[in-house]
Amino acid sequence: MNETKENILKKALQLTSLFGLESLSIGKLAKEMEMSKSGLFAHFKSKENLQIEVLRYGSQLFTESIFKPALAAPRGTPRIRALVENWPNWIGHGVAGDCPILAALTELDEKMGPVREFLFEIMTQYMESLSKMSNIAKEEGHFPANTDSQQFAFELISIMLGYQATRKLPWQAEQRLTESMENLIQRFEEGRKND
Amino acid sequence: MNETKENILKKALQLTSLFGLESLSIGKLAKEMEMSKSGLFAHFKSKENLQIEVLRYGSQLFTESIFKPALAAPRGTPRIRALVENWPNWIGHGVAGDCPILAALTELDEKMGPVREFLFEIMTQYMESLSKMSNIAKEEGHFPANTDSQQFAFELISIMLGYQATRKLPWQAEQRLTESMENLIQRFEEGRKND
Repeated sequence: MNETKENILKKALQLTSLFGLESLSIGKLAKEMEMSKSGLFAHFKSKENLQIEVLRYGSQLFTESIFKPALAAPRGTPRIRALVENWPNWIGHGVAGDCPILAALTELDEKMGPVREFLFEIMTQYMESLSKMSNIAKEEGHFPANTDSQQFAFELISIMLGYQATRKLPWQAEQRLTESMENLIQRFEEGRKND
Repeated sequence: MNETKENILKKALQLTSLFGLESLSIGKLAKEMEMSKSGLFAHFKSKENLQIEVLRYGSQLFTESIFKPALAAPRGTPRIRALVENWPNWIGHGVAGDCPILAALTELDEKMGPVREFLFEIMTQYMESLSKMSNIAKEEGHFPANTDSQQFAFELISIMLGYQATRKLPWQAEQRLTESMENLIQRFEEGRKND
């Protein structure tokens, strides 16, 4: 990717994180970048393609800045904890506001088309990555062998969403995120009674 | 509220649930309602006011159709379970798509102003209602006396958000919602080890 295109995508991602993917237009972005609309159009061809590129860029940025650093932690639960500790650096910092991918999920949920398909693909991949982290915790003997890793991924993403939704409310979201996560990991470590 | 206004708000809430609160305009709504823009403007005066009225209407509808029916269940954990069982009737049914209030939360998170203030008020009230449900479970002896009800509310809303975010993915969201909720209630019933 050339530098100009990367700078455009950086700005587009920031705008998406603040105002959503739907309100992102080539015209608006051109204004923000102080570029001509036709110059910007040459990079992306259509609004849909711009949206897809923004999602791809956001997903790559998340992988590089949040997910990969967690892989430096030892396999299993330490790695899961490292990811969770790193996650609030994404919200409000790595991007300007909410996670642009989760924000887009709310917006595009009912809007059929290639952008939604691409978004669902990214989300499924992310859920599978979380699920894999739980599988590794099983391999390491941190979680019992009968652990349902898809369930773990569901509960993990839920807590992250809860953090995102309440971080501006008087609800000590950061502390609750940590506590929820410890509760979740401990419960999975102990294995569930009814299994 | 007169019938015309209620019909407008119904349609506006549906559009919000599908496409978000930001893309809701008096012009767009007038077109959908086959009304004149000036006729619709007379009801709401401004886009901001329309957005606030939609949030208020959505919040009332949620209270009436989801929250209040749960109050018919016995106090404590049966009531919490009744709420959770009723919640998927809101997503995609009571409203057309995602919960319009949670959707707005993602959109307005960084956008200062009266709409955001009103939204944060609704959300805080809702979190307090969930917290109160946990307090009642304490009173009934279902949860131990040292239960952190704000933490319970955080984990409860997190699971609902997780359900909403994954319900279109191949992730058995409805089943995961039920399992997560049972795990949560059981953990709180047993009390936490480290308390």
